[in-house]
Amino acid sequence: MTETPAPVPSSSPSLLSRLIAEFLGTFWLVFGGCGSAVLAAGFVNQDGVHLGIGFLGVALAFGLTVVTGAYAVGHISGGHFNPAVTLGVFLGGRIEAKAVLPYMATQVVAGLVAATVLFVVASGGPDFSIDPGAAGSFATNGYGELSPGGYGLLSAFVLEVVLTAVFLWVILGVTHGRAPVGFAPLAIGLALTLIHLIAIPVTNTSVNPARSLAVAVFNPAALGQVWLFILAPLIGAAIAGATYRLLFDRE
Amino acid sequence: MTETPAPVPSSSPSLLSRLIAEFLGTFWLVFGGCGSAVLAAGFVNQDGVHLGIGFLGVALAFGLTVVTGAYAVGHISGGHFNPAVTLGVFLGGRIEAKAVLPYMATQVVAGLVAATVLFVVASGGPDFSIDPGAAGSFATNGYGELSPGGYGLLSAFVLEVVLTAVFLWVILGVTHGRAPVGFAPLAIGLALTLIHLIAIPVTNTSVNPARSLAVAVFNPAALGQVWLFILAPLIGAAIAGATYRLLFDRE
Amino acid sequence: MTETPAPVPSSSPSLLSRLIAEFLGTFWLVFGGCGSAVLAAGFVNQDGVHLGIGFLGVALAFGLTVVTGAYAVGHISGGHFNPAVTLGVFLGGRIEAKAVLPYMATQVVAGLVAATVLFVVASGGPDFSIDPGAAGSFATNGYGELSPGGYGLLSAFVLEVVLTAVFLWVILGVTHGRAPVGFAPLAIGLALTLIHLIAIPVTNTSVNPARSLAVAVFNPAALGQVWLFILAPLIGAAIAGATYRLLFDRE
Amino acid sequence: MTETPAPVPSSSPSLLSRLIAEFLGTFWLVFGGCGSAVLAAGFVNQDGVHLGIGFLGVALAFGLTVVTGAYAVGHISGGHFNPAVTLGVFLGGRIEAKAVLPYMATQVVAGLVAATVLFVVASGGPDFSIDPGAAGSFATNGYGELSPGGYGLLSAFVLEVVLTAVFLWVILGVTHGRAPVGFAPLAIGLALTLIHLIAIPVTNTSVNPARSLAVAVFNPAALGQVWLFILAPLIGAAIAGATYRLLFDRE
Repeated sequence: MTETPAPVPSSSPSLLSRLIAEFLGTFWLVFGGCGSAVLAAGFVNQDGVHLGIGFLGVALAFGLTVVTGAYAVGHISGGHFNPAVTLGVFLGGRIEAKAVLPYMATQVVAGLVAATVLFVVASGGPDFSIDPGAAGSFATNGYGELSPGGYGLLSAFVLEVVLTAVFLWVILGVTHGRAPVGFAPLAIGLALTLIHLIAIPVTNTSVNPARSLAVAVFNPAALGQVWLFILAPLIGAAIAGATYRLLFDRE
Repeated sequence: MTETPAPVPSSSPSLLSRLIAEFLGTFWLVFGGCGSAVLAAGFVNQDGVHLGIGFLGVALAFGLTVVTGAYAVGHISGGHFNPAVTLGVFLGGRIEAKAVLPYMATQVVAGLVAATVLFVVASGGPDFSIDPGAAGSFATNGYGELSPGGYGLLSAFVLEVVLTAVFLWVILGVTHGRAPVGFAPLAIGLALTLIHLIAIPVTNTSVNPARSLAVAVFNPAALGQVWLFILAPLIGAAIAGATYRLLFDRE
Repeated sequence: MTETPAPVPSSSPSLLSRLIAEFLGTFWLVFGGCGSAVLAAGFVNQDGVHLGIGFLGVALAFGLTVVTGAYAVGHISGGHFNPAVTLGVFLGGRIEAKAVLPYMATQVVAGLVAATVLFVVASGGPDFSIDPGAAGSFATNGYGELSPGGYGLLSAFVLEVVLTAVFLWVILGVTHGRAPVGFAPLAIGLALTLIHLIAIPVTNTSVNPARSLAVAVFNPAALGQVWLFILAPLIGAAIAGATYRLLFDRE
Repeated sequence: MTETPAPVPSSSPSLLSRLIAEFLGTFWLVFGGCGSAVLAAGFVNQDGVHLGIGFLGVALAFGLTVVTGAYAVGHISGGHFNPAVTLGVFLGGRIEAKAVLPYMATQVVAGLVAATVLFVVASGGPDFSIDPGAAGSFATNGYGELSPGGYGLLSAFVLEVVLTAVFLWVILGVTHGRAPVGFAPLAIGLALTLIHLIAIPVTNTSVNPARSLAVAVFNPAALGQVWLFILAPLIGAAIAGATYRLLFDRE
C-alpha cells in the first residue's frame, strides 16, 4: 500500500511493544464496538425512517475492530484484546506465563480509557443519558431485567461459556501451523461478528471481561452483574484452551 | 496471531481427529446459524424499533459459521459440516469411501447436540415457544404452509436441488489445485451466505440434511416435511459431485 | 478443504471448458442476484416486521455470486460472467479475439436459463406476478417510470457508463501482475456489491447486458428499455478497457 | 482472473502514474461513498417498506471503495485517496516529501469531479434538492445543527481526531513488513467501514478532508463548517504518523 515498507527486524517484539499493541487493539475493540452500539444502533431520522445500523451493524463493528486491529498489531502482540483470549491461548500453550497478567491488566486499562473517551463523545448528544434500569444502556451486558430480550441467568451463563469456548477453539485452530497463512485476523474477527449475531438479545454479548467491565463502571446496575461476564468467558476460554491440544494436537 | 505457532506435523490427521473436527464444525453451524435465527432475527425494542438482524443477518451468520469453522478445522477434516457436502465431495473423488458414513453420522449427532443446547438457551427467554403451525418456528425448514413465504413443494424441491448443486460445484472448484490457495473457507462460507440470501423465504434454507434434522426433532410439523430437506440436498450434491470431473477435470 | 486436491494440469483449459465455466458463473450471477431480489428483498412477516434483505442484501448477493463463482471457476475462464467485462478485458489486451463472441453468447444463454429456473421457483409463491408497469418487477432494469426511484434516462445512462467503466478499471487493476495474488475474485465481487449499493434506486443496477436481457424477456415493458442496459455498460467497459493501458501500462 | 496477465515491470511507477491512480481512487471513494448515501440510504417503496441501505449500507459502501480501489491501484500509488492519510503516511516515513502536495491536490480535485458527476446523476431524480438547513444533505459533514444526531462541536472534533488517528495506526500497521502480505487493502477498507458504523450519527463521518470539501461546495451551510473536517482529520493523522515509529518501530 505504501512505497517504502519498513524493514523487517529479525528479533521478537519486546514485552513493552506487545503491551502497547494490546492497549491500542483493546481500546479500538471497546471504543469501536461499544461506540457503534451507543451512537448508531437505533438511529431514526426526522421522517421516522430507521437508518440505524441495528444489531447487525453492531455485530459487524465488533468483528471489524478485531479484523483491523489484529492485521495492524497482531504481528506484534498476537492480537488478543481480551483477557479470556489471553487465558485460553496461555492454556493452549501459545504464550509464556509471565506475559499473562501484564496482558490482562493492559486490556482492562485500555477498555476503561476507551469507555471514558466514548462517554465524552456520546454525552455531547442532545438526549444522552445512562439509565441503569434499561437493558444494554451504554452498551452494558446483563441478564434477567438487564438482558435486552429478558433472558435469565442460566441462558446467559450457558451462552457466554459456549460462545467463548468456540471462540477460543477457532482462535487456536486458525493460528495452527497447518491453517492457511494470513487469514487468522479475518477469521477471528468474523467469529466475533458471528458471536454477536447470536447473543446480543440474550446478554448484549460479552465473551470479553475487559469489554464488559469498561462500560459497567459507568452504569451501577450493570456493575452488579458484571461478575458473570468476567467468570463465564474465563471458564469457556479455559475449557477450550485446555482441551484443544487434547482434541487436535495429539499427532 | 500468537507467539508460538504449534509445530506442523508431517503425518495426515487420524480419522478420530477428523470426526472431532466435523463434530465441532457442525455444532457451530447449527448452533450459530439456527441460534441467530431463533434468538436475534426479529428483535423489536420497547420503542417499536426493529433492531433484529433479519434474514440478512441470519444469512451472514450461517455463512460465518463455515468461514470460521473451516479456517479453524478445515485443515484437519476438510470442513464439510454437512452430509450433502460429504456425499458430493466423495462423488467428486476427494475423500475415501470408508470415511463417508462416519462423517455423516458425526454431523447428524453434532447437529442434534447443538439444537439441544440452543433449546436450553432459548427456553430461558420470556416468550419462548415452538409453534408447529408457524413456518420456520425454531428455525425449521418447510414448504407449503411451513414455508415462510408460502411457497409450494415444487418450488422448494427445485430450489434446494439447484442451490446444493451450485454449492458443491463452488466447493469442488475453490478446492481445486489451480484455485488461489487459502481462500476456500472464505468462498465456501460466503456461498452459504448467498444461498441463504436467496432461499430463506422459500424453505428457510436447508442445503444441509444435518441442519434440517437437528431442529425438526423439536417441531413435529417440521419433522413431517424433513424428508424433502434430506432428499433434495443429497440429490443436488450428487449431481454436482458426479458431473464436476466430467465438466472441468477432463484435461 | 478436502483431503485429495485434484492434480494441477500444465496445459491451459480448452475453450469448451472455459465456456462451461462462463455458463455456470453467469447462471449463478443471474439466478442468485436476481433471485435474492425477487424472493427475499421485501419480506414482511405476519406481525408486520420487515425481515427482508432489502437493497443491502441484494447488493451483497450480486457481489457474492461473483466472489464465489470467480474463486470456483476463475482459474478456468477468467470469471467474466458479463459481456461488458469480456469486451473491456479484450480491449485491455487480456483475452484473445476469437474467444470474445463465444464468451458473450454463452453468457446470454446462461442468463436466460437462470431467469427461467427462477421463474419456475418464484411462480410457486402465493402472490407471484410480473407487473410490467411496476419498476423492478422480476428484478428488471429501467429508467423513468421503470426506475425504482423515478430517475430519468440521462441519470440512468451516465450512471451505468461510469459504474461499468470503474468496474473494468478495478478488474484490470486487481488482475495486474503487480496486484496481490489471489484477491482478485474478492475485490471484483465486492466492487459489484458496491455498484449495487449505489445504483439500485436509479436503474435497479445493470452494468451487465446478459443480466438485464435475461429478466427483461419476462417483462414486456422492461424489454422496451433494455437497449440502454446493453449499450451503456458496453460503452463504459470499452472506455475503461481502451484507456487502462494508456493510463497505467506505459511503463 | 484473466488469461494473459500484464508483464510485471521492474521499475517503480512514475509520479504521473501515481497521481492518475490517486485520482481514480479518490473519485471512486467520493462517488461511491457519497453516492450510496445520497441515492440509496433511505429508500422507501410504494408500500412504505424501507428497502434502503441505511447507515450500515453507507458504511459498507465507503469501505468497499477503498477495498476495491486499493486492490486495483494500491500497487501503483499506495492507495491513499485522502489527504490525511498522505500526511500520516509521510510523517510515518513511508512516502517521499515531494509527492505529498501533488497527492493532496490530486485528491481534492478528484473529489470535486466525483461530487459534480454525482450531482448530475442525483438531480435527475424526482424529488432531488440540497437543503442547507438539513443535516447530511448531499452527504455533507457537520456538527451541531448539521450533525445527523445533533452532536456538538466538541464531540465532533474529538471523534474525528480519534478515528483518524486509529485509522492511520491501522494503515501503518497493516502495511508494515511483518504484517500478512496482501491483506492491507482489505483491512484498511474495512477500517473505514467500521469508522462509518461509529460516526455517521455524530458527523456523518469524514476522516478525509477531500471527501468533506467535495460535497460541501454544493451546500453553503456545510461549507461554513468544513474547516473542522479538514483540521481534525489532519491532526489525528499527524499524531498517529508521528507516534507510530516511536511506539512500534523502535526495534
